[in-house]
Amino acid sequence: MKTYQVGLIGAGFMAKAHSIAYDGMPMFFWPAPGMAVKKTIADLTEECAKDAAQRLGFQQGTANWRDIVDDPEIDIVDICTPNNAHCEIAVAAAEAGKHILCEKPIARTLEEAEKMRDAVKKAGVINMLAFNYRRTPAVQLAKKLIDEGAIGAILDFRGTYLQDWSADPDSPLSWRFQKKVCGSGALGDIGTHVVDMARFLIGDFAEVNAHVATYINERPLQTGSADSLGNVKGGGGPKGNVDVDDQCCFMINFKNGAFGTIEATRNAWGRNNFITLEIHGTEGSIYFNYERRDELQVCFASDAGDRRGFRTIYTGPAHPYGEGLWPIPALGIGYTETKIVECYDFIKAIAENKQPSPNFEDGYQIERISDAVLRSGVSRAWEKV
Amino acid sequence: MKTYQVGLIGAGFMAKAHSIAYDGMPMFFWPAPGMAVKKTIADLTEECAKDAAQRLGFQQGTANWRDIVDDPEIDIVDICTPNNAHCEIAVAAAEAGKHILCEKPIARTLEEAEKMRDAVKKAGVINMLAFNYRRTPAVQLAKKLIDEGAIGAILDFRGTYLQDWSADPDSPLSWRFQKKVCGSGALGDIGTHVVDMARFLIGDFAEVNAHVATYINERPLQTGSADSLGNVKGGGGPKGNVDVDDQCCFMINFKNGAFGTIEATRNAWGRNNFITLEIHGTEGSIYFNYERRDELQVCFASDAGDRRGFRTIYTGPAHPYGEGLWPIPALGIGYTETKIVECYDFIKAIAENKQPSPNFEDGYQIERISDAVLRSGVSRAWEKV
Amino acid sequence: MKTYQVGLIGAGFMAKAHSIAYDGMPMFFWPAPGMAVKKTIADLTEECAKDAAQRLGFQQGTANWRDIVDDPEIDIVDICTPNNAHCEIAVAAAEAGKHILCEKPIARTLEEAEKMRDAVKKAGVINMLAFNYRRTPAVQLAKKLIDEGAIGAILDFRGTYLQDWSADPDSPLSWRFQKKVCGSGALGDIGTHVVDMARFLIGDFAEVNAHVATYINERPLQTGSADSLGNVKGGGGPKGNVDVDDQCCFMINFKNGAFGTIEATRNAWGRNNFITLEIHGTEGSIYFNYERRDELQVCFASDAGDRRGFRTIYTGPAHPYGEGLWPIPALGIGYTETKIVECYDFIKAIAENKQPSPNFEDGYQIERISDAVLRSGVSRAWEKV
Amino acid sequence: MKTYQVGLIGAGFMAKAHSIAYDGMPMFFWPAPGMAVKKTIADLTEECAKDAAQRLGFQQGTANWRDIVDDPEIDIVDICTPNNAHCEIAVAAAEAGKHILCEKPIARTLEEAEKMRDAVKKAGVINMLAFNYRRTPAVQLAKKLIDEGAIGAILDFRGTYLQDWSADPDSPLSWRFQKKVCGSGALGDIGTHVVDMARFLIGDFAEVNAHVATYINERPLQTGSADSLGNVKGGGGPKGNVDVDDQCCFMINFKNGAFGTIEATRNAWGRNNFITLEIHGTEGSIYFNYERRDELQVCFASDAGDRRGFRTIYTGPAHPYGEGLWPIPALGIGYTETKIVECYDFIKAIAENKQPSPNFEDGYQIERISDAVLRSGVSRAWEKV
Repeated sequence: MKTYQVGLIGAGFMAKAHSIAYDGMPMFFWPAPGMAVKKTIADLTEECAKDAAQRLGFQQGTANWRDIVDDPEIDIVDICTPNNAHCEIAVAAAEAGKHILCEKPIARTLEEAEKMRDAVKKAGVINMLAFNYRRTPAVQLAKKLIDEGAIGAILDFRGTYLQDWSADPDSPLSWRFQKKVCGSGALGDIGTHVVDMARFLIGDFAEVNAHVATYINERPLQTGSADSLGNVKGGGGPKGNVDVDDQCCFMINFKNGAFGTIEATRNAWGRNNFITLEIHGTEGSIYFNYERRDELQVCFASDAGDRRGFRTIYTGPAHPYGEGLWPIPALGIGYTETKIVECYDFIKAIAENKQPSPNFEDGYQIERISDAVLRSGVSRAWEKV
Repeated sequence: MKTYQVGLIGAGFMAKAHSIAYDGMPMFFWPAPGMAVKKTIADLTEECAKDAAQRLGFQQGTANWRDIVDDPEIDIVDICTPNNAHCEIAVAAAEAGKHILCEKPIARTLEEAEKMRDAVKKAGVINMLAFNYRRTPAVQLAKKLIDEGAIGAILDFRGTYLQDWSADPDSPLSWRFQKKVCGSGALGDIGTHVVDMARFLIGDFAEVNAHVATYINERPLQTGSADSLGNVKGGGGPKGNVDVDDQCCFMINFKNGAFGTIEATRNAWGRNNFITLEIHGTEGSIYFNYERRDELQVCFASDAGDRRGFRTIYTGPAHPYGEGLWPIPALGIGYTETKIVECYDFIKAIAENKQPSPNFEDGYQIERISDAVLRSGVSRAWEKV
Repeated sequence: MKTYQVGLIGAGFMAKAHSIAYDGMPMFFWPAPGMAVKKTIADLTEECAKDAAQRLGFQQGTANWRDIVDDPEIDIVDICTPNNAHCEIAVAAAEAGKHILCEKPIARTLEEAEKMRDAVKKAGVINMLAFNYRRTPAVQLAKKLIDEGAIGAILDFRGTYLQDWSADPDSPLSWRFQKKVCGSGALGDIGTHVVDMARFLIGDFAEVNAHVATYINERPLQTGSADSLGNVKGGGGPKGNVDVDDQCCFMINFKNGAFGTIEATRNAWGRNNFITLEIHGTEGSIYFNYERRDELQVCFASDAGDRRGFRTIYTGPAHPYGEGLWPIPALGIGYTETKIVECYDFIKAIAENKQPSPNFEDGYQIERISDAVLRSGVSRAWEKV
Repeated sequence: MKTYQVGLIGAGFMAKAHSIAYDGMPMFFWPAPGMAVKKTIADLTEECAKDAAQRLGFQQGTANWRDIVDDPEIDIVDICTPNNAHCEIAVAAAEAGKHILCEKPIARTLEEAEKMRDAVKKAGVINMLAFNYRRTPAVQLAKKLIDEGAIGAILDFRGTYLQDWSADPDSPLSWRFQKKVCGSGALGDIGTHVVDMARFLIGDFAEVNAHVATYINERPLQTGSADSLGNVKGGGGPKGNVDVDDQCCFMINFKNGAFGTIEATRNAWGRNNFITLEIHGTEGSIYFNYERRDELQVCFASDAGDRRGFRTIYTGPAHPYGEGLWPIPALGIGYTETKIVECYDFIKAIAENKQPSPNFEDGYQIERISDAVLRSGVSRAWEKV
């Protein structure tokens, strides 16, 4: 079994998610396609990096991410930084011949995305974006059912990603609210997950027509460099401007003729990680809500009329990735499990030398969609992707 | 207590709903604002009308609706016909000085709606449109909470009305699929209910940006004149063209700055009468689903962070109209109860000589919105209402 | 079409429910099996009775219920009084040859129930108990599926009836808390509904093993004779003893070998009319919750393993009584609709001269079960029914 | 930071769950109370053990579990075997002075449980049972709310654990259906989880009154030694007898006066890991369903009557263990996360030299309850614990 040395850059909560996935993957999927060895982790300071190495089980820490890219023993560069560092690191890693797993969204801008896509293409390295939600078994089951034709031709799609952790104006101005770091706001941070799933399940986008808005225009400045997610509150100090969207909604014409809408907002009190998909086809419907992620709801038109209704299917061994996960349904799919599946597909792609999905090309296509959404938010008209 | 003589025109399922409401209203709301007497019902033939009179408890039937309008004893004209007859009847009734309850949508076209609005205005008669869903106690509770500021300033609104009774292409071509009778399809038939609730809860619409589509372009011709709703199937005979929308979706800019979307479709397998409202405000959120209409879900931002979440409130005596309905929550709000509340407000409006809401002016405003939606469906651009 | 003159005794909220059902029944089920004419209503005083007559649409009111029993024109005696009056009225009505619809539970004691059962048997009159919840279309669908063998042999049954309207110790001491009026508490008032559905769906009870308890032992005395249901609060005046159960729970061995439990409580904050049924069979499962009464959830073991799960079926035209109710699912089953179905079956039974179910014999059997439950509550042992 | 060497015995799905927890714990809870080093894993054969070591990241494998107990470097013995091996291993480990984490239920019989309890007591080692479900953050939140008095005095408790993975009679005769290996069936395997949570949330049991049954009396013999869980089907070969319960239900009188019921069954089609808790107190109610484990539903009587209802609280950073888990609610609590919390509390207990809960004393008390349940199943009477 082949072994791959991993260098991970950025030590926030995503680093945790990726680290447990490297450890857990062979435990779940055995024989594993390969074994990942957590060699080096990079963070902003030596101290942070050393602490992260101990905490996350890496052999060493460094304050210089180029140590990772330059290390000839490293096979995989795993990018868990804020968006503004994706491009530079990914291009360097590609040039160094490393396989790359990069957190989403791919980059701040379409230009950056293009550069990254071109770099991995030129280098011929395996590349993947960490849109993990599409790897929830229930979403994979949706894909399987659609591909089988179980709900017929797709008529329409409706996706949402609603959150409230920053609905409070006193939630601090983390990097997620600063355009120079993140590129866009709710759109890039959460909306792109739904775009990824829409592309995965329905297909390519032809054009979009968007509403893009910012309701909370300033927030308390954040102290410290760590990402202020969750129930963190800003203090009474000075405030800074939010220059990205916190709400966006757009209509979609898919290339195959289906129609759709996607809404992403950070102002939806009571919604936490409310990623929903509703798909209507000529022969049935599918509904998914990540907050109840063990379940997929499916209605088959072919069921007899007196006993037709959405079936609440709990994913388990009979469903995609089920053999590797838990032996009965509803033992529990958590965030960890989605990341283990992601890791499995990434290592398998390397082992088999086949690009996984979503890769940087997909990320670039998603960025084109984001770009069209932002353009449409300004032009107030349908914009081609 | 004053007594009002009712003449009802059209003997389909709406006539049933209105008839039981006239009988049940004083049983629920006592002392009643007035007593309705079911005097005359009109249907297409003498035989049908006589049968309807017996079935629905009217004193007499007639095949000529003008008998009702011309009857000086009649106080109220209740219009339960397909949309194509609304205008002629309503104008005649208004000219005859009758109070009018009219089924929704107000008419086939903006021109008809305008005529009707002008006629009742000129005649000074009480007029109301039967958008009953806004009278569900849970929707009324939503209104009360919003008006109290319980969820703060409204940021966005998302409404749906999804059905599947005609998702089968073999469902017959009833009048609801023929433009000359209905004016528009899913938009007018079901979408306007959501538009009415959006206006009620959020406020006036400034502009809309719409997608309007027809997926099932022909259906078996219907035999007989009755409305083919529900699980009726067409036979193997000839088919006719559907010339109205069966799906529409539009973005909304409200005049007060809130953003919204509304989607109405008849192609959503597994959704029956899936009227949902999701409203996000600066201080909380509201969710309603008519399929579970005894409940309103409300999240208050002011709840402590460790015990915040959507509250599932079952409406009962403590809520709007609760004193008149059932003595404890969840005994059951059905379609009948929504219509009894509607009847109560209508008779009260007559007794108090105050226009109820939604009245023909509201219906006209809704028709303006529908008109803008249809225009936008063609222009593919934002259209002012 | 035959006409039946109705005399109704007791003018509380049940009188409202029955009155609207008499009016609405032919509107829903046409041709009706017969027409009910609301002739006389009896209440405690002349004034109350006259008021009730006007409110509920009876021709006349009386303060003497014997006027009804003695009226040779009356065909039907409808008993909507508290439990303590059931026996005397029913026996007198039976002796006068009247058909009888009686609210549940049949009586305060087994002895009374036996007298009533014997009286109607001797008189040969049609008799029915108003256990309306079993007539919810979704419960009828459960029955149909079980009878078809769709879920195989029944293994176990779990029923609940949880409420909270009197969970507050300040809720007044209405007749429902006084043994001399009601016979038993949560058991008779709400538990018997579940017993009725258990007998209907699963079969006869062989023995029970019960826990019976009273948590709130005194309540403010009620002022006035009306039933204090709902969100009524007692004042600061004197209190009286509660001498009936407010919580009971029992295990059941059915005669056919199935096992079950039933729990009824009035102390379940947040549960309003939480009547649930969960049934496991060798080939599937059924779940029902009256708070979401338009739905039945059914799981079929025979569904393929990768798409098996509870189906949420919304009842409509394709389901029991659906032809008479509303034309599409989820328009709304409310309390009114359950009572209309009940009325239909009662009038049909009279017209066809066939005893309906549940009749007084059923009520007597249910009372035997209640009696065994109360005995077991004392003996702390299995008690034969 | 102290390091603990772990020896794990048994390499089935529980070994996977424990292994990922050892790795993930410091990633989630940092600074960790100590670091676990996965030294040795024992399985039935050398080959299996070596494979497990590689798969689960242990330094070595052995076919002889005594190698672990005898290894002076080992600090922790982690028992993931079927129930029949618990006692022998645990006693040996205790005698060798090892800290012990043991899968549930503690043993096959009360006698074994007593021996194990005595052994750890005598040895003074830290000991814990792996009843992980009580460590779901939502269950911990329930505990916190109860302890704060947020729902007042507890009146009653209703717990279920319903599954269907072996509802098919063709599901093979794994060790879970053989008394000599497992001790009891649904009771020990799943019911004890609910017993553990009932003791945790409500308190000690005084007496129980039980129904215990076996519906599927024989199953196909299993080939191979691995545990046949999930959607495994037996072949057409010979069958063997099931000599344990597959369904049990019991009433409980708690020592503090609360009443309860617990039901565990493996025959509930459509229920997968349906662990539910419903608790009614004088000031509120709590509902939990593990199939939707990110949520706790809580109703507070003190909420205003017109806005009272179950709150659906998604657990996150504001809730127990939230600081260590994911930064926002509904990112996802899976089985892994419950095991990481368990591991954290176990290692912390060792580091602090304080017995965790549930420990072997708790396991012994649970076994006493199981014993009383089985006795009551035979005696058909209340049995003291």
